[in-house]
Amino acid sequence: MMNPFDDNYFMKRALQEAELAFEKNEVPVGAVIVMNDQIIARAHNLTETLNDVTAHAEMQAFTAAADFLGGKYLNKCTLYVTLEPCQMCAGASYWTQIGKIVYGASEEKRGFKAMNTTLHPKTKVVSGILENECSLLLKKFFIEKRNLN
Amino acid sequence: MMNPFDDNYFMKRALQEAELAFEKNEVPVGAVIVMNDQIIARAHNLTETLNDVTAHAEMQAFTAAADFLGGKYLNKCTLYVTLEPCQMCAGASYWTQIGKIVYGASEEKRGFKAMNTTLHPKTKVVSGILENECSLLLKKFFIEKRNLN
Repeated sequence: MMNPFDDNYFMKRALQEAELAFEKNEVPVGAVIVMNDQIIARAHNLTETLNDVTAHAEMQAFTAAADFLGGKYLNKCTLYVTLEPCQMCAGASYWTQIGKIVYGASEEKRGFKAMNTTLHPKTKVVSGILENECSLLLKKFFIEKRNLN
Repeated sequence: MMNPFDDNYFMKRALQEAELAFEKNEVPVGAVIVMNDQIIARAHNLTETLNDVTAHAEMQAFTAAADFLGGKYLNKCTLYVTLEPCQMCAGASYWTQIGKIVYGASEEKRGFKAMNTTLHPKTKVVSGILENECSLLLKKFFIEKRNLN
Protein backbone atom coordinates (compact mmCIF):
# COMPACT_ATOMS: atom_id res chain seq x y z
CA MET A 1 0.00 0.00 0.00
CA MET A 2 1.21 3.47 -0.81
CA ASN A 3 1.93 5.78 2.10
CA PRO A 4 -0.43 8.75 1.66
CA PHE A 5 1.93 10.84 3.79
CA ASP A 6 4.52 11.59 1.13
CA ASP A 7 6.42 14.80 0.36
CA ASN A 8 3.57 16.10 -1.82
CA TYR A 9 1.09 15.62 0.99
CA PHE A 10 3.09 17.68 3.46
CA MET A 11 4.09 20.31 0.90
CA LYS A 12 0.37 20.85 0.26
CA ARG A 13 -0.02 21.59 3.96
CA ALA A 14 2.87 24.07 3.74
CA LEU A 15 1.14 25.64 0.71
CA GLN A 16 -2.03 26.07 2.75
CA GLU A 17 0.07 28.03 5.22
CA ALA A 18 1.49 30.12 2.36
CA GLU A 19 -2.07 30.90 1.28
CA LEU A 20 -2.84 32.20 4.77
CA ALA A 21 0.15 34.52 4.43
CA PHE A 22 -1.13 35.66 1.02
CA GLU A 23 -4.49 36.57 2.51
CA LYS A 24 -2.67 38.75 5.08
CA ASN A 25 -0.75 40.56 2.36
CA GLU A 26 2.46 38.83 3.42
CA VAL A 27 4.99 37.35 0.98
CA PRO A 28 3.33 33.93 0.70
CA VAL A 29 5.71 31.42 2.22
CA GLY A 30 4.47 28.60 4.43
CA ALA A 31 6.11 25.82 6.40
CA VAL A 32 5.27 22.73 8.38
CA ILE A 33 7.51 20.52 10.49
CA VAL A 34 6.81 16.81 10.50
CA MET A 35 7.89 13.99 12.77
CA ASN A 36 6.75 10.39 12.25
CA ASP A 37 4.23 11.50 9.61
CA GLN A 38 2.68 13.94 12.06
CA ILE A 39 2.68 17.72 11.68
CA ILE A 40 4.08 19.16 14.90
CA ALA A 41 4.37 22.81 13.80
CA ARG A 42 2.90 25.01 11.10
CA ALA A 43 3.65 28.65 10.33
CA HIS A 44 3.61 31.27 7.62
CA ASN A 45 5.57 34.41 6.96
CA LEU A 46 4.51 37.25 9.28
CA THR A 47 7.24 39.84 8.70
CA GLU A 48 4.79 42.65 7.88
CA THR A 49 2.21 41.78 10.50
CA LEU A 50 4.83 41.53 13.25
CA ASN A 51 7.06 44.24 11.78
CA ASP A 52 9.94 41.82 12.21
CA VAL A 53 12.29 40.55 9.51
CA THR A 54 13.05 37.49 11.61
CA ALA A 55 9.42 36.27 11.42
CA HIS A 56 9.99 33.99 8.41
CA ALA A 57 7.79 30.90 8.30
CA GLU A 58 10.73 28.59 9.02
CA MET A 59 11.91 30.52 12.09
CA GLN A 60 8.50 30.40 13.66
CA ALA A 61 8.14 26.72 12.78
CA PHE A 62 11.49 25.87 14.42
CA THR A 63 10.47 27.67 17.60
CA ALA A 64 7.04 26.01 17.64
CA ALA A 65 8.42 22.52 16.95
CA ALA A 66 11.03 22.78 19.71
CA ASP A 67 8.32 24.01 22.05
CA PHE A 68 6.10 21.07 21.12
CA LEU A 69 8.89 18.53 21.60
CA GLY A 70 10.30 20.10 24.75
CA GLY A 71 13.79 19.82 23.24
CA LYS A 72 15.86 22.14 21.11
CA TYR A 73 16.96 19.60 18.49
CA LEU A 74 14.87 18.57 15.51
CA ASN A 75 17.08 15.80 14.17
CA LYS A 76 14.11 13.44 13.77
CA CYS A 77 12.04 16.05 11.96
CA THR A 78 11.53 17.26 8.40
CA LEU A 79 10.90 20.88 7.48
CA TYR A 80 8.59 21.40 4.50
CA VAL A 81 8.74 24.94 3.18
CA THR A 82 7.30 26.39 -0.01
CA LEU A 83 10.37 28.52 -0.81
CA GLU A 84 14.07 27.71 -0.50
CA PRO A 85 15.24 28.99 2.91
CA CYS A 86 17.39 32.12 3.14
CA GLN A 87 20.72 32.18 4.97
CA MET A 88 19.07 33.22 8.25
CA CYS A 89 16.66 30.29 8.17
CA ALA A 90 19.27 27.85 6.90
CA GLY A 91 21.57 29.12 9.66
CA ALA A 92 18.82 28.47 12.21
CA SER A 93 18.30 24.99 10.75
CA TYR A 94 21.99 24.32 11.42
CA TRP A 95 21.44 24.90 15.14
CA THR A 96 18.27 22.75 15.19
CA GLN A 97 20.20 19.87 13.54
CA ILE A 98 17.04 19.21 11.53
CA GLY A 99 17.04 15.83 9.78
CA LYS A 100 15.68 16.95 6.42
CA ILE A 101 14.64 20.07 4.55
CA VAL A 102 12.16 19.75 1.68
CA TYR A 103 11.42 22.90 -0.28
CA GLY A 104 9.24 23.84 -3.23
CA ALA A 105 10.33 26.86 -5.26
CA SER A 106 13.98 27.86 -5.59
CA GLU A 107 15.27 31.28 -4.55
CA GLU A 108 18.00 31.95 -7.07
CA LYS A 109 19.27 35.17 -5.48
CA ARG A 110 18.86 34.93 -1.73
CA GLY A 111 18.37 31.24 -1.16
CA PHE A 112 20.87 29.37 1.01
CA LYS A 113 22.32 27.61 -2.04
CA ALA A 114 23.29 30.83 -3.83
CA MET A 115 24.46 32.25 -0.50
CA ASN A 116 26.55 29.16 0.29
CA THR A 117 25.09 28.81 3.76
CA THR A 118 26.38 25.80 5.66
CA LEU A 119 23.72 23.31 6.73
CA HIS A 120 24.19 20.84 9.55
CA PRO A 121 26.18 17.88 8.18
CA LYS A 122 23.30 15.51 9.00
CA THR A 123 20.61 17.57 7.22
CA LYS A 124 19.35 16.08 3.95
CA VAL A 125 17.84 18.34 1.30
CA VAL A 126 15.10 17.68 -1.26
CA SER A 127 14.02 20.42 -3.65
CA GLY A 128 11.36 21.05 -6.28
CA ILE A 129 8.37 19.44 -4.54
CA LEU A 130 5.22 21.15 -5.93
CA GLU A 131 7.62 23.73 -7.32
CA ASN A 132 5.10 25.18 -9.79
CA GLU A 133 2.33 25.65 -7.25
CA CYS A 134 4.70 27.22 -4.72
CA SER A 135 6.22 29.48 -7.34
CA LEU A 136 2.90 30.53 -8.88
CA LEU A 137 1.54 31.73 -5.54
CA LEU A 138 4.62 33.93 -5.09
CA LYS A 139 4.36 35.28 -8.63
CA LYS A 140 0.67 36.04 -8.16
CA PHE A 141 1.51 37.96 -4.98
CA PHE A 142 4.19 40.11 -6.59
CA ILE A 143 2.07 40.82 -9.69
CA GLU A 144 -0.86 41.98 -7.53
CA LYS A 145 1.51 44.03 -5.38
CA ARG A 146 2.96 45.74 -8.45
CA ASN A 147 -0.46 46.55 -9.88
CA LEU A 148 -1.57 48.14 -6.61
CA ASN A 149 1.42 50.47 -6.38
CA MET B 1 35.54 67.17 24.25
CA MET B 2 35.60 63.41 23.95
CA ASN B 3 32.31 61.67 23.27
CA PRO B 4 31.76 59.31 26.21
CA PHE B 5 29.47 57.22 24.01
CA ASP B 6 32.12 55.33 22.09
CA ASP B 7 32.31 51.68 21.03
CA ASN B 8 33.81 50.68 24.40
CA TYR B 9 30.94 52.29 26.25
CA PHE B 10 28.28 50.36 24.35
CA MET B 11 30.25 47.10 24.34
CA LYS B 12 30.35 47.34 28.13
CA ARG B 13 26.55 47.50 28.08
CA ALA B 14 26.49 44.41 25.84
CA LEU B 15 28.87 42.71 28.31
CA GLN B 16 26.46 43.45 31.14
CA GLU B 17 23.82 41.60 29.12
CA ALA B 18 26.25 38.70 28.62
CA GLU B 19 26.73 38.58 32.41
CA LEU B 20 22.97 38.26 32.86
CA ALA B 21 23.08 35.26 30.49
CA PHE B 22 25.97 33.79 32.50
CA GLU B 23 23.95 34.02 35.71
CA LYS B 24 21.14 32.06 34.00
CA ASN B 25 23.56 29.32 32.95
CA GLU B 26 23.28 30.42 29.31
CA VAL B 27 26.26 30.73 26.95
CA PRO B 28 27.17 34.32 27.90
CA VAL B 29 26.53 36.45 24.85
CA GLY B 30 24.94 39.87 25.12
CA ALA B 31 23.85 42.53 22.66
CA VAL B 32 22.57 46.08 22.53
CA ILE B 33 21.29 48.08 19.58
CA VAL B 34 22.09 51.77 19.49
CA MET B 35 20.67 54.68 17.50
CA ASN B 36 21.91 58.24 17.95
CA ASP B 37 23.93 57.24 21.02
CA GLN B 38 20.81 55.80 22.64
CA ILE B 39 20.29 52.11 23.47
CA ILE B 40 16.98 51.09 21.91
CA ALA B 41 17.23 47.34 22.56
CA ARG B 42 19.15 45.02 24.85
CA ALA B 43 19.13 41.24 24.99
CA HIS B 44 21.11 38.19 26.00
CA ASN B 45 21.23 34.62 24.85
CA LEU B 46 18.22 32.64 26.09
CA THR B 47 18.46 29.42 24.07
CA GLU B 48 18.32 27.17 27.14
CA THR B 49 15.72 29.14 29.06
CA LEU B 50 13.41 29.34 26.05
CA ASN B 51 14.41 25.93 24.67
CA ASP B 52 14.88 27.64 21.32
CA VAL B 53 18.03 27.73 19.21
CA THR B 54 16.81 30.90 17.52
CA ALA B 55 16.90 32.86 20.80
CA HIS B 56 20.39 34.27 20.27
CA ALA B 57 21.00 37.72 21.78
CA GLU B 58 21.16 39.37 18.34
CA MET B 59 17.87 37.87 17.10
CA GLN B 60 16.01 39.12 20.14
CA ALA B 61 17.69 42.52 19.88
CA PHE B 62 16.66 42.88 16.20
CA THR B 63 13.05 42.07 17.07
CA ALA B 64 13.04 44.45 20.03
CA ALA B 65 14.68 47.31 18.09
CA ALA B 66 12.22 47.03 15.19
CA ASP B 67 9.40 46.97 17.68
CA PHE B 68 10.75 50.10 19.38
CA LEU B 69 11.17 51.94 16.07
CA GLY B 70 7.90 50.78 14.54
CA GLY B 71 9.82 49.92 11.35
CA LYS B 72 11.54 46.78 10.16
CA TYR B 73 14.79 48.39 9.00
CA LEU B 74 17.69 49.24 11.27
CA ASN B 75 19.87 51.09 8.76
CA LYS B 76 20.50 53.93 11.22
CA CYS B 77 21.42 51.56 14.05
CA THR B 78 24.51 49.78 15.34
CA LEU B 79 24.48 46.31 16.83
CA TYR B 80 27.00 45.76 19.64
CA VAL B 81 27.44 42.09 20.43
CA THR B 82 30.04 40.38 22.62
CA LEU B 83 30.62 37.47 20.21
CA GLU B 84 30.92 37.44 16.43
CA PRO B 85 27.45 36.66 15.02
CA CYS B 86 26.71 33.22 13.56
CA GLN B 87 25.29 32.76 10.06
CA MET B 88 21.71 32.83 11.34
CA CYS B 89 22.21 36.17 13.10
CA ALA B 90 24.28 37.62 10.26
CA GLY B 91 21.56 36.44 7.87
CA ALA B 92 18.97 38.23 10.00
CA SER B 93 21.14 41.36 10.01
CA TYR B 94 21.04 41.27 6.20
CA TRP B 95 17.25 41.61 6.27
CA THR B 96 17.37 44.39 8.88
CA GLN B 97 19.84 46.34 6.69
CA ILE B 98 21.61 47.30 9.92
CA GLY B 99 24.10 50.14 9.51
CA LYS B 100 26.94 48.70 11.58
CA ILE B 101 27.91 45.61 13.51
CA VAL B 102 30.48 45.91 16.30
CA TYR B 103 31.56 42.69 17.97
CA GLY B 104 33.96 41.70 20.73
CA ALA B 105 35.32 38.15 20.61
CA SER B 106 35.80 36.28 17.34
CA GLU B 107 34.12 32.94 16.64
CA GLU B 108 36.68 31.14 14.52
CA LYS B 109 34.52 28.12 13.70
CA ARG B 110 30.91 29.21 13.47
CA GLY B 111 31.17 32.97 13.09
CA PHE B 112 29.80 34.58 9.96
CA LYS B 113 33.31 35.28 8.66
CA ALA B 114 34.39 31.64 8.67
CA MET B 115 30.96 30.69 7.30
CA ASN B 116 31.15 33.31 4.53
CA THR B 117 27.71 34.69 5.33
CA THR B 118 26.72 37.63 3.16
CA LEU B 119 26.00 40.84 5.06
CA HIS B 120 23.90 43.65 3.65
CA PRO B 121 26.14 45.73 1.34
CA LYS B 122 25.61 48.81 3.52
CA THR B 123 26.55 47.12 6.81
CA LYS B 124 29.93 48.16 8.23
CA VAL B 125 31.79 45.82 10.58
CA VAL B 126 34.12 46.58 13.48
CA SER B 127 35.67 43.72 15.47
CA GLY B 128 37.78 43.21 18.57
CA ILE B 129 36.16 45.81 20.86
CA LEU B 130 36.77 44.64 24.47
CA GLU B 131 37.76 41.34 22.92
CA ASN B 132 39.54 40.04 26.03
CA GLU B 133 36.67 40.78 28.40
CA CYS B 134 34.12 39.25 26.03
CA SER B 135 36.27 36.19 25.44
CA LEU B 136 37.17 35.67 29.11
CA LEU B 137 33.51 35.53 30.15
CA LEU B 138 32.88 32.82 27.56
CA LYS B 139 35.97 30.86 28.64
CA LYS B 140 34.94 31.10 32.30
CA PHE B 141 31.50 29.74 31.37
CA PHE B 142 32.83 26.73 29.49
CA ILE B 143 35.43 25.92 32.17
CA GLU B 144 32.77 25.98 34.90
CA LYS B 145 30.47 23.90 32.71
CA ARG B 146 33.19 21.30 32.14
CA ASN B 147 34.02 21.08 35.82
CA LEU B 148 30.37 20.49 36.74
CA ASN B 149 29.92 17.62 34.28
